[in-house]
Amino acid sequence: MLTDEFHVFDTTLRDGAQREGISYSVADKIAVARLLDQVGVGFIEGGWPGALPKDTEFFARAADGELELANATLAAFGATRKAGVAVQDDPQVKALLDARTEVVVLVAKSDVRHVRRALRTTLEENLAMVGDTIAYLREHGRRVFLDCEHFFDGYRVDADYGVRVLDAAASAGAEVGVLCDTNGGSLPAGLGEIVAAVRQRVGIRLGIHAHNDTGCAVANTLAAVGAGVTHVQGTANGYGERAGNANLFTVVGGLVTKLGLDVLPDGCLAELSRVSRAIAEIANLVPDAHAPYVGAAAFTHKAGLHASAIKVDREMYNHMDPAVVGNDQRILVTEMAGRASVELKSAELGVDVSGRPDVVSKVVEHVKVHEASGWSYEAADASFELLLRDQLGEFIDPFHVESYRVITDRREDGELVSEATVKVRAAGRRVISTEEGNGPVNALDRALRGALAEAFPRLAEFKLTDYKVRILPGNPGTDAITRVLVGTSDGRREWTTVGVHANVIEASWLALHDAVRYGLLGQRA
Amino acid sequence: MLTDEFHVFDTTLRDGAQREGISYSVADKIAVARLLDQVGVGFIEGGWPGALPKDTEFFARAADGELELANATLAAFGATRKAGVAVQDDPQVKALLDARTEVVVLVAKSDVRHVRRALRTTLEENLAMVGDTIAYLREHGRRVFLDCEHFFDGYRVDADYGVRVLDAAASAGAEVGVLCDTNGGSLPAGLGEIVAAVRQRVGIRLGIHAHNDTGCAVANTLAAVGAGVTHVQGTANGYGERAGNANLFTVVGGLVTKLGLDVLPDGCLAELSRVSRAIAEIANLVPDAHAPYVGAAAFTHKAGLHASAIKVDREMYNHMDPAVVGNDQRILVTEMAGRASVELKSAELGVDVSGRPDVVSKVVEHVKVHEASGWSYEAADASFELLLRDQLGEFIDPFHVESYRVITDRREDGELVSEATVKVRAAGRRVISTEEGNGPVNALDRALRGALAEAFPRLAEFKLTDYKVRILPGNPGTDAITRVLVGTSDGRREWTTVGVHANVIEASWLALHDAVRYGLLGQRA
Repeated sequence: MLTDEFHVFDTTLRDGAQREGISYSVADKIAVARLLDQVGVGFIEGGWPGALPKDTEFFARAADGELELANATLAAFGATRKAGVAVQDDPQVKALLDARTEVVVLVAKSDVRHVRRALRTTLEENLAMVGDTIAYLREHGRRVFLDCEHFFDGYRVDADYGVRVLDAAASAGAEVGVLCDTNGGSLPAGLGEIVAAVRQRVGIRLGIHAHNDTGCAVANTLAAVGAGVTHVQGTANGYGERAGNANLFTVVGGLVTKLGLDVLPDGCLAELSRVSRAIAEIANLVPDAHAPYVGAAAFTHKAGLHASAIKVDREMYNHMDPAVVGNDQRILVTEMAGRASVELKSAELGVDVSGRPDVVSKVVEHVKVHEASGWSYEAADASFELLLRDQLGEFIDPFHVESYRVITDRREDGELVSEATVKVRAAGRRVISTEEGNGPVNALDRALRGALAEAFPRLAEFKLTDYKVRILPGNPGTDAITRVLVGTSDGRREWTTVGVHANVIEASWLALHDAVRYGLLGQRA
Repeated sequence: MLTDEFHVFDTTLRDGAQREGISYSVADKIAVARLLDQVGVGFIEGGWPGALPKDTEFFARAADGELELANATLAAFGATRKAGVAVQDDPQVKALLDARTEVVVLVAKSDVRHVRRALRTTLEENLAMVGDTIAYLREHGRRVFLDCEHFFDGYRVDADYGVRVLDAAASAGAEVGVLCDTNGGSLPAGLGEIVAAVRQRVGIRLGIHAHNDTGCAVANTLAAVGAGVTHVQGTANGYGERAGNANLFTVVGGLVTKLGLDVLPDGCLAELSRVSRAIAEIANLVPDAHAPYVGAAAFTHKAGLHASAIKVDREMYNHMDPAVVGNDQRILVTEMAGRASVELKSAELGVDVSGRPDVVSKVVEHVKVHEASGWSYEAADASFELLLRDQLGEFIDPFHVESYRVITDRREDGELVSEATVKVRAAGRRVISTEEGNGPVNALDRALRGALAEAFPRLAEFKLTDYKVRILPGNPGTDAITRVLVGTSDGRREWTTVGVHANVIEASWLALHDAVRYGLLGQRA
């Protein structure tokens, strides 16, 4: 467990869920909270009980033992009492107590314009709402953090009112006053100055909550730490409304690896990359390959210049060791990379191309030509390895496909059927296999496996783990080129193959075909 | 035209092209350069002539009149002469002259470790390489900017050597010394201090080139401007190797709207959002909806809290007016938004739901249920409007689909055919239509239009403009849910529809079907 000296506060499940396209189920929320706990955040803001039924259910299930946290403390989010209402009569405040969390985060207005125009109340009543609600929650044994909404915009209009809100919070027993750049329009230099000035005037511990509307959420957060805050809020992968929130993983990466602040429990930093990608999957979003520290491409080199230099001196071309954040370095196979990259990649795959400059040349040429028509081997190591072994003359196709056909039929009674037929020759025999599936690709996959099942019993262990379709722009509409990536596992290892074609069925077929060929490498029927 | 006081220097086509997955054709490069010129950058670095054949061709075609620039000056990138080689004998330097650009950008080592271990030469010879190459290019009438590679890492090891490189460059006639954070590991506070210290010691104009490995490329660039640089390098949308380069659009947004620096020609700032998205399309990348300033979601509000407040006071919830950067505000339809968002969205679509609280409730309920099974109306306004009008009782389906069937066949001779049959009833008649296409969805689209052509002649004007497939994770492999978005145009307006199903064909069909229904709104057969 960490001490309370520095708060790493995550709001992925509350503010982060405001991002367009994100919609967590309660089970999703529990899974995300477990991952955040594994990466060692100090606090997890789980949602707004009372306002959102899913959030109410999340807190109930968490309190009933479904969510055990090793590192993190759970926090519920809500607003101060309504203007003119006694705090004990406000159902929203009651919902906060019912959430049974150790910490409650209250949001309060700290910009005079918002008090007057959005809350439609007086500046004094707003201060009373802050004080009353905090005092009431404190009486009920809660730790209280106060999110001061629109703090920086408000400060620029009236530098005193935000300070009065912080003082009211401190007097009532709040532990942290969080300065929120709610509209996200601040830049680090100005924001740091305001934080430093406020810190001179208040006694309460300060925190920072930044949005990325100027592309500076992470830098703003680090500037606030430089000015003395010891509580940073952010979200996994920077998810959030508009341009997003401060990316908590990038903030933590900077705090630990650049500023030497030991803000995570031992061993947690190395979980950063895994947790980042897992949360993206739960959020139904493609993991950002270019995210700092944790992205799949964060330490990936493409330039021919660099790839050849990397052979000389690996650490001169990375700002840090990728393993520290659980990431690794990859070399890309691309037209810009040239021979050095193909050689490095081959070594990475365990294929010996030393002494075969002719093969390297052919592979470089093949990649160039294929990439020009939409192929990409960057994510498809297995297809690249097949190409490499083919050029080395090592590879002999273990089966031959004669033809396939796939039919999708929606009948008048509304029933929908996809059915595929595949004709292959393997182990000296001709086999025709027809299977149904829940879609054309699934049916094709089943029919191909069915046709080969007898010749290659190992196929039964193969499982499709991923199927991605990418429409490549350029040719608009359904005339566009389609790129399909297929992930396959045999329980011991996973591999990815690629197929590209104007016809989505053929593109899928090419990737499925490569997936089976790769899995059978070294086997003869 | 701008004065030379502040350089906005774009390297999308050189350093930005190092991003994984990007591969521009020469025509792409010319199109990107035109867009960058429209947004008013001062310099466009077009590539590395001599090193990459495509870049050589790009400069040749540009010099031969194919690329006329209104605002920008074209720059070619290359390295200083090789160690131990006379500058006039270095073919790479000759290629720079052959590129016929007004500006040449030379890259030079400024970190003693890189001079010794990567270049394998002496510190003195490296200085001579810098001086010789610049002097030679100056003699041939070129303006020369020097990129000092690994400047900040080098400074931390030996603070004098980088200064000596800058002095050598100034003496030989270089105009700008660009301080490069090549590995991207810097944070703004430290970087700003180094820039300020270097500025005290050198006479040459300074520039900044930042990478985003700490998530601070934009903030680092702004910190350098704060410390006195007057030349900023970056790329469209921040494209670049690893975590990317400084996003030039975000940098410009900050310089103009936050720091009040007038760095673009009049009228150009309003092109920012359009140009950002157009370059993404050319780069074959999905535009980042969450990019600051220019993203489609940069001013989008989802929270029920905010959506109801926005009805009161629009500007209190945005850090700026979106129109300044050619963007706009959108309201999302989502389960979190509730009634206020549905009402705002309806008003945006011109559908009157005032006085119909029952309809608003039904729509909110429908959206909740559908979103739980993978639907998303956020990008599909047309499908949402159909839903809305259906609940209002306004909408009567102008045709009825009995059934469809689609077959994809790869024959033994390798020929690939997709063929679809659609059976509909419209205008009192039953029509059966069969068409071929270059894929199953294209065939279906044609067959549906074929079946309706006689009853609805207007259909001939409809054109599919976009087709996007998204596999929703959760159910791995080909069992996953597929979400399809279809864009359609009738020459006057464009609309987007959505379909969701486990079967990719049915998901596509649902989106195509809605696209036609929406286009025929208000028409009866």
